[in-house]
Amino acid sequence: MLTNKRTHHCNELSHINVEEKVHLIGWVHRRRDHGGLIFIDLRDRNGLTQLLFDPEKAKNAHNLAGNLRSEWVIQVEGKVVPRAEGMINPNLQTGKIEIEVFDLEIISQAKTPPFSICDQEINISEDLRLKYRYLDIRRGEIAANLRLRHQAMMVIRKYLDSLSFHEISTPILGRSTPEGARDYLVPSRVYPGNFYALPQSPQIFKQLLMISGMERYFQIAPCFRDEDLRSDRQPEFTQIDIEMSFGDTEDIIDITEALMIALFKECLGINIGNQFPRLTHAKCMESYGSDRPDLRFAMPLIRIDHIALKSEFSVFLNELKTGGCVKCLCVKGGADISRKEIDAYTAFVSEFGLKGLGWMKMQEDKLHSSITKFFSEDLLTQLASHTNAENGDLLLFAASSESLVNKSLDHLRRRLAKNRNLIDPNVYKFLWVTDFPLFEMDAENGRIKSVHHPFTHPHPEDIHLLEKDPLKVRSDAYDIVLNGYELGGGSKRIHNPEMQQEIFKVLKISPEDVKNKFDFFVEALKYGTPPHLGIAMGLDRVIMLLAKTDNIRDVIAFPKTQKASDLMMQSPSSVSDEQLNELKLQTESKEIYWL
Amino acid sequence: MLTNKRTHHCNELSHINVEEKVHLIGWVHRRRDHGGLIFIDLRDRNGLTQLLFDPEKAKNAHNLAGNLRSEWVIQVEGKVVPRAEGMINPNLQTGKIEIEVFDLEIISQAKTPPFSICDQEINISEDLRLKYRYLDIRRGEIAANLRLRHQAMMVIRKYLDSLSFHEISTPILGRSTPEGARDYLVPSRVYPGNFYALPQSPQIFKQLLMISGMERYFQIAPCFRDEDLRSDRQPEFTQIDIEMSFGDTEDIIDITEALMIALFKECLGINIGNQFPRLTHAKCMESYGSDRPDLRFAMPLIRIDHIALKSEFSVFLNELKTGGCVKCLCVKGGADISRKEIDAYTAFVSEFGLKGLGWMKMQEDKLHSSITKFFSEDLLTQLASHTNAENGDLLLFAASSESLVNKSLDHLRRRLAKNRNLIDPNVYKFLWVTDFPLFEMDAENGRIKSVHHPFTHPHPEDIHLLEKDPLKVRSDAYDIVLNGYELGGGSKRIHNPEMQQEIFKVLKISPEDVKNKFDFFVEALKYGTPPHLGIAMGLDRVIMLLAKTDNIRDVIAFPKTQKASDLMMQSPSSVSDEQLNELKLQTESKEIYWL
Repeated sequence: MLTNKRTHHCNELSHINVEEKVHLIGWVHRRRDHGGLIFIDLRDRNGLTQLLFDPEKAKNAHNLAGNLRSEWVIQVEGKVVPRAEGMINPNLQTGKIEIEVFDLEIISQAKTPPFSICDQEINISEDLRLKYRYLDIRRGEIAANLRLRHQAMMVIRKYLDSLSFHEISTPILGRSTPEGARDYLVPSRVYPGNFYALPQSPQIFKQLLMISGMERYFQIAPCFRDEDLRSDRQPEFTQIDIEMSFGDTEDIIDITEALMIALFKECLGINIGNQFPRLTHAKCMESYGSDRPDLRFAMPLIRIDHIALKSEFSVFLNELKTGGCVKCLCVKGGADISRKEIDAYTAFVSEFGLKGLGWMKMQEDKLHSSITKFFSEDLLTQLASHTNAENGDLLLFAASSESLVNKSLDHLRRRLAKNRNLIDPNVYKFLWVTDFPLFEMDAENGRIKSVHHPFTHPHPEDIHLLEKDPLKVRSDAYDIVLNGYELGGGSKRIHNPEMQQEIFKVLKISPEDVKNKFDFFVEALKYGTPPHLGIAMGLDRVIMLLAKTDNIRDVIAFPKTQKASDLMMQSPSSVSDEQLNELKLQTESKEIYWL
Repeated sequence: MLTNKRTHHCNELSHINVEEKVHLIGWVHRRRDHGGLIFIDLRDRNGLTQLLFDPEKAKNAHNLAGNLRSEWVIQVEGKVVPRAEGMINPNLQTGKIEIEVFDLEIISQAKTPPFSICDQEINISEDLRLKYRYLDIRRGEIAANLRLRHQAMMVIRKYLDSLSFHEISTPILGRSTPEGARDYLVPSRVYPGNFYALPQSPQIFKQLLMISGMERYFQIAPCFRDEDLRSDRQPEFTQIDIEMSFGDTEDIIDITEALMIALFKECLGINIGNQFPRLTHAKCMESYGSDRPDLRFAMPLIRIDHIALKSEFSVFLNELKTGGCVKCLCVKGGADISRKEIDAYTAFVSEFGLKGLGWMKMQEDKLHSSITKFFSEDLLTQLASHTNAENGDLLLFAASSESLVNKSLDHLRRRLAKNRNLIDPNVYKFLWVTDFPLFEMDAENGRIKSVHHPFTHPHPEDIHLLEKDPLKVRSDAYDIVLNGYELGGGSKRIHNPEMQQEIFKVLKISPEDVKNKFDFFVEALKYGTPPHLGIAMGLDRVIMLLAKTDNIRDVIAFPKTQKASDLMMQSPSSVSDEQLNELKLQTESKEIYWL
């Protein structure tokens, strides 16, 4: 029996090791039989090494190797030899050598896997990959993402520790909040009928830590939200959570920017520079129709209300009359886009409710289209100048309510960029969006709600508007955006108990609810609360961008589906009656059918 | 208005800063008025600095300072001046200077706290401290523990990263296991009547990561157990979780020992040496009656069956006849223990079911007591020699079943050590306990259960006993013990699916339960599983020992009571009917009364 002690990993050996006796352990990645010889690519987490079984040199080992199948776990002893001329594999770190094996031991056999481990491309459903997640990780790509994630967490912790931030774990068995609709609940056995809730964020705890005088806190914090999932969301996700006392927005911005620079430098070796432009929320919506624009390409939204007003185009005029607006995109070189393609874009924006898209093409120094007749020559010249339209460009117009125009043109802008290859995948464009509105209307129930959360401090210039015009109040909040993704956001928090009560009043949280759910927190604010502020960033999303994937499940070891189920563990699942009895719970059960 | 930018922390200034203009921010720790002057001890997280308000030098600031009360948050500008002769405080880092304040701004006022923040000793209930946890942290001791915890986590991560272990987060929304009785459940909204469970440990996930080929994993992992709590347990706790492939027990032991050495060195500056003795479980029980003995003092349990057998003492003889044993403790210098005290110890052990304690005192080279008459002179000489009894020593005897003798004398040994001050609180004594039994009888239901968990590998020498004498089978498991606390434990895991099935059979887990709950795992074992092993240590307990407290709540930011409630958040709590309806849950409710 061999000793189970490897001398090298499968990425380490090169021509300088020739003639060395080595001991390797790993998985059978690939097998080839060739002229009486057996070749095995042996794989461990670090790489591949080719094994050679030669019946003339080691009969027993060669015999045993005849049984080997993909994914068996083996250990071997052998001698490093140079590969024969013409057999060198330049794509492999160990491609110049192979191991002449003289002793082989089979550690574990393996069933044939449901999909190939060794082929780079496999054409199977994500569901099957999730069911056999442990094998999908073994394929290498997700394993690399998990290593990257580990490395990123080390960088984050080292950096924040160097600034005297202390990582403090906050409870996972928390309390249901007024936004309880998205809380995962945990029934209490000691107090039946009462529940814990899993935290949607450690917001209250981190503020309490500031009240505790800890001054600088961070946490890579597990968070939970029970909502219907979009493709880049998971029911459990991870936040890089940072909070500090006695600082200001510039401190948080500096710390976050330096953290991002360190992450890209140390994880990818990329220097992202220190250009983190800022836009107010209002300006950002005006120019991109979105509060998280992708700045890897330009093509801003251009308002042409003042020009449209002077035209005779009734579609534009009617929208302007009823409080709407007209904006356009200037697609550089887009004059080559066919009528059919424009029709497809029109259908695309109609999904968001926009009735149509106007268009004009700039050719031979003039704008052309079926609607130019509603514009005077002078007006067309103004339009071309205002939009910077040059020969070969296409203008696309949307006229409707402000929000619909913004939403449609934001989507259209991104679609055009994708279709026309305007995005360099190796570029990272950050953006700070500041001066968010403090409140917004909840379309579902017509009530005022917080854009971020009810602990956000109002902009000092707007405090006088709180009572009479709350929707006009800006907040001391900031979001950080990267390549069209919101990485995270933060704000100055309210540290004055009266101000906090006033915000609850604007939000029409009943005094009873405030008492039940926030009493302890408002009380805590009364004992000498330092001014404090912070930021929270989605770790999963940061890793996703570092790993250049757009599937958040690719950066999580054991993710859940969009129905929040775990196809491997087959969870959620039914539980025993004893368990339910002990919790004094009754329930109707819906059966799940697993893959 | 001042700028909110401190120049120094409250621990930093000394005589070398005299005449400097400084800006400090913090809390009013203490106030003293003295001959028209106002003295304030200003506190931030780093320390204290004395402020001096002199009406002749800064009238406005002095006037304003007249309003200051404990725990108000203020910022000041002033000049560093040396303290007057005789006013120097040698116990304070900044004790040689004070700040002559010329500008003061009040940032936050504070209600009078429910207990003193500035006094070191306060005589209030732990419940009140937990309700105002944020103020209790502000008192300093718990804040220091939290900083120590942060530092320890950094050391752990840095060390394991240096050995190429990767931290990988595993799901918190997991699946209920057969030991489901202690699972916290989370109802699913998408699949009503189905539940997730919070993990009692990431055991299955870390093994799946080994199957995934990750080779070296660790995690500082949140874990959950819904059990009635002892004083050193919490419903949510944290595990240092380590797993590796292709290693052996010596690797895990080496890694763990080096980790402990690094922790004590870097967190406390203490060199604990590299003495980590080992005892088999059998030897440990024999000598200490416990599998987690405190080795800071000796006083082992000494078996005297062979001597007792030759005596005429019927109490001993009867126990030996019915399969019991006789063991004793030799209490060095214990001859000064009075009859009354011995009676108290007898009452103490009777709590564990032991009927009585025999005793003999060694004085003038002879053993004396009312029971020596049942022993021949020669036998007494043998006894003295076998127990190493010297003049002035006391022997205490217990005769009963093996388990009762062990349990009673273990408790008695620790009680004696405490009462007789045998424990040096500055000493750290580690111990490895190895060769645990694989199974034990569950006293509650008379069924065989795993001592650790069902994935533990049997000792290779004992595999043949699995079917016919499972209680004799030892495991490839090891626990690490420090000063009488079990810090953690681990084992080699089963990597062979047939062996795993056989263990389930011994445990009489029904094929249906195996299929429902472990099918996916046994299936996973079939695809080429590497041999793997690991260890898990209780982080909270490690920090508790580093922080020299015996209350686990002192090292957790927001702990729960022994009824698993959070007195600050008032959780668990009732939730809205809408929330329950959405989860299709009905429940009877038990009201909670809060402090």
